[in-house]
Amino acid sequence: MSIDPLEYYSQADFDLMLSESRKHKTPFLIFNLDILRQKYNELHCHFPYVRIHYAVKANPAVEILKVLDELDSNFDIASVNELDRLLSIGVDPSRISFGNTIKKAEDIHYAYEKGIRLFASDSDHDLFNIAREAPGSKVFFRILTDGGDSADWPLSRKFGCHPDLATDLILLALDLKLIPCGISFHVGSQQREIGYWNSALAKVRYIFDYLETLGLKMTLINMGGGFPASYISRTSPMETYSEEITRYLKEDFSERPPEIIIEPGRSLVGDAGILVTEVVLIAEKSHHAMDKWLYVDTGKFNGLTETWGEAIKYPLYTEAPGEDSSDYIIAGPTCDSQDVMYESFRNPLPSGIKEGDRIYWFSTGAYTASYASVEFNGFKPIPVYFVGQRAKEK
Amino acid sequence: MSIDPLEYYSQADFDLMLSESRKHKTPFLIFNLDILRQKYNELHCHFPYVRIHYAVKANPAVEILKVLDELDSNFDIASVNELDRLLSIGVDPSRISFGNTIKKAEDIHYAYEKGIRLFASDSDHDLFNIAREAPGSKVFFRILTDGGDSADWPLSRKFGCHPDLATDLILLALDLKLIPCGISFHVGSQQREIGYWNSALAKVRYIFDYLETLGLKMTLINMGGGFPASYISRTSPMETYSEEITRYLKEDFSERPPEIIIEPGRSLVGDAGILVTEVVLIAEKSHHAMDKWLYVDTGKFNGLTETWGEAIKYPLYTEAPGEDSSDYIIAGPTCDSQDVMYESFRNPLPSGIKEGDRIYWFSTGAYTASYASVEFNGFKPIPVYFVGQRAKEK
Repeated sequence: MSIDPLEYYSQADFDLMLSESRKHKTPFLIFNLDILRQKYNELHCHFPYVRIHYAVKANPAVEILKVLDELDSNFDIASVNELDRLLSIGVDPSRISFGNTIKKAEDIHYAYEKGIRLFASDSDHDLFNIAREAPGSKVFFRILTDGGDSADWPLSRKFGCHPDLATDLILLALDLKLIPCGISFHVGSQQREIGYWNSALAKVRYIFDYLETLGLKMTLINMGGGFPASYISRTSPMETYSEEITRYLKEDFSERPPEIIIEPGRSLVGDAGILVTEVVLIAEKSHHAMDKWLYVDTGKFNGLTETWGEAIKYPLYTEAPGEDSSDYIIAGPTCDSQDVMYESFRNPLPSGIKEGDRIYWFSTGAYTASYASVEFNGFKPIPVYFVGQRAKEK
Repeated sequence: MSIDPLEYYSQADFDLMLSESRKHKTPFLIFNLDILRQKYNELHCHFPYVRIHYAVKANPAVEILKVLDELDSNFDIASVNELDRLLSIGVDPSRISFGNTIKKAEDIHYAYEKGIRLFASDSDHDLFNIAREAPGSKVFFRILTDGGDSADWPLSRKFGCHPDLATDLILLALDLKLIPCGISFHVGSQQREIGYWNSALAKVRYIFDYLETLGLKMTLINMGGGFPASYISRTSPMETYSEEITRYLKEDFSERPPEIIIEPGRSLVGDAGILVTEVVLIAEKSHHAMDKWLYVDTGKFNGLTETWGEAIKYPLYTEAPGEDSSDYIIAGPTCDSQDVMYESFRNPLPSGIKEGDRIYWFSTGAYTASYASVEFNGFKPIPVYFVGQRAKEK
């Protein structure tokens, strides 16, 4: 026993997933729609005043989108293909934001034709495209914020602009007959330090104040994602996130509460997935090796992308017997020498583990199946099997 | 003009690829089968004494496998799916080696049933599986070698064992009624320092000598891959690789020349591909930004996987006008903050480049299309279009 599954799952949820998993050949992902429902309801309960836009990119499976649709979630898309999938299950476009600041003019045009009226932007070139292809739409502007080194899948400078530029873009949007409605930010995915929301909100307050001196009233703050799933590096409970963030909002915006959007992805679907793998081989590389190489049947190129740089540390469970050992380097099955998930970080595994045993990768519901490569080394993408209550057919 | 295409392609080859590329919507890969033919013939001409086993993982497209089959190439597979594809085009199993040291017992069984009789190994557990599932097969043993920091896609310790362990495995193989036939090594992919082949061959010589004292004669050296494609960091011509490596072989093995296998992948197919992308957006992040963010319509999660850590530096060509500038940070179209290809390394691009212009990523025929994700952020895998002489139908 490597970890206690009941630290991560209720007995009922875990039993349901484990029993479904017995039916299939590895590797595959089991996704529990009941956990998704719990996570959504929990988030809604802790942030009753926010509009939840699920970040479809985290896991775009139709079964997941249908459940969230049933729960009245809104959605945030990264591309027009994600839009098409939402429309195909009957989601009204008024519940969809196009949150990618990087988009082709033709894709803006397509989204507008389909009814999308809410866009993110962070540059004048993109804004000109929105004005031309999606006239009169609402736009929020993403600012650069700091997420420190406490976000497990960190930010880069890829998205967002300096606050001064954001205010200029808001004025430009007015000139272009768009409706600039607010500011968005993102503190980094799997952000363990709640204080970064405070710093970001202070920046937003500063921008809102400045615009008010120009007679402009902003009505929206999009706080993005960053809420955690349950990996090895533990995080505060969602309750603490909500208490703290709600306090920051009250301090800065109590006299004029704006509409608040959040874009959770990982925190809704991450915990709901278990990637089930099998030990292919355990090898020692020399007579006096201290380390053992343990190879499983999926890897960095087939679902475990977020182990690049050993960034996300998934909890591993196995039913193999023996004392926990830190001797195991864990790697994937491809011939690629970079396909090693954990070498510096040692996930304890029982010393009795052997070929053919299953290893369960907990909290793998986000950023796994859709990341898998089409056929690298001839390995097929990992299938996903669903358990739990599906959405009612419309 | 960022780079001169004629430094990388003949006028005829480039014209053929460019003219095909005009017919398609980005992003996609153009693959020139004529270049593949030239590369194969060049390699065969420089290493007339070796048996070429194409590393299917580098690019498993059927069109490529058929041309190599026509040229009488042999093949090395990483998985049984790659085997199935080769068998489906009529490749005889005697021309296929199973070079992945990480394989399930059931996959060894399947390969043996299909006629595979040549396997790689580097651990006793794998060897027991081979003995049981593929009795009497030939096995070569992979040793750990050093590739320094001159391999652009470097080695890890994932494959290979210590030479002392290799000799023990050879003795074990005999006990298990297998045919231990030799040693394999790999000096790292895109290896720019030819001297590493010398160090590796010296190790093989040492092992062969030791085994000869036990009355055992090894007959095979598998020198793996590592031969380069043409990226930004220039490499010696293939002629130099062949001259030097042939000299090392003569020095160490002249009195008893073994059979030599090489497993080229990147060096055969890399240069034959051009990934064609379009500039989606150019953004400045602040009023006084020195850098410009240039986003193209494919990225790290959809074909450009080998830009992780800015490892492989692809040459970029564009027809946009203007003086070369190093201001551009180049990133992909997804909402993932890690989807940035080059930020430290600056690939010069003309200052007149704008949205909608095409950027041609040279030498992207290897480890791109098959690495692409199934649907990350809703972006579809990149299609591949072929030009040049196809294989004759059998």
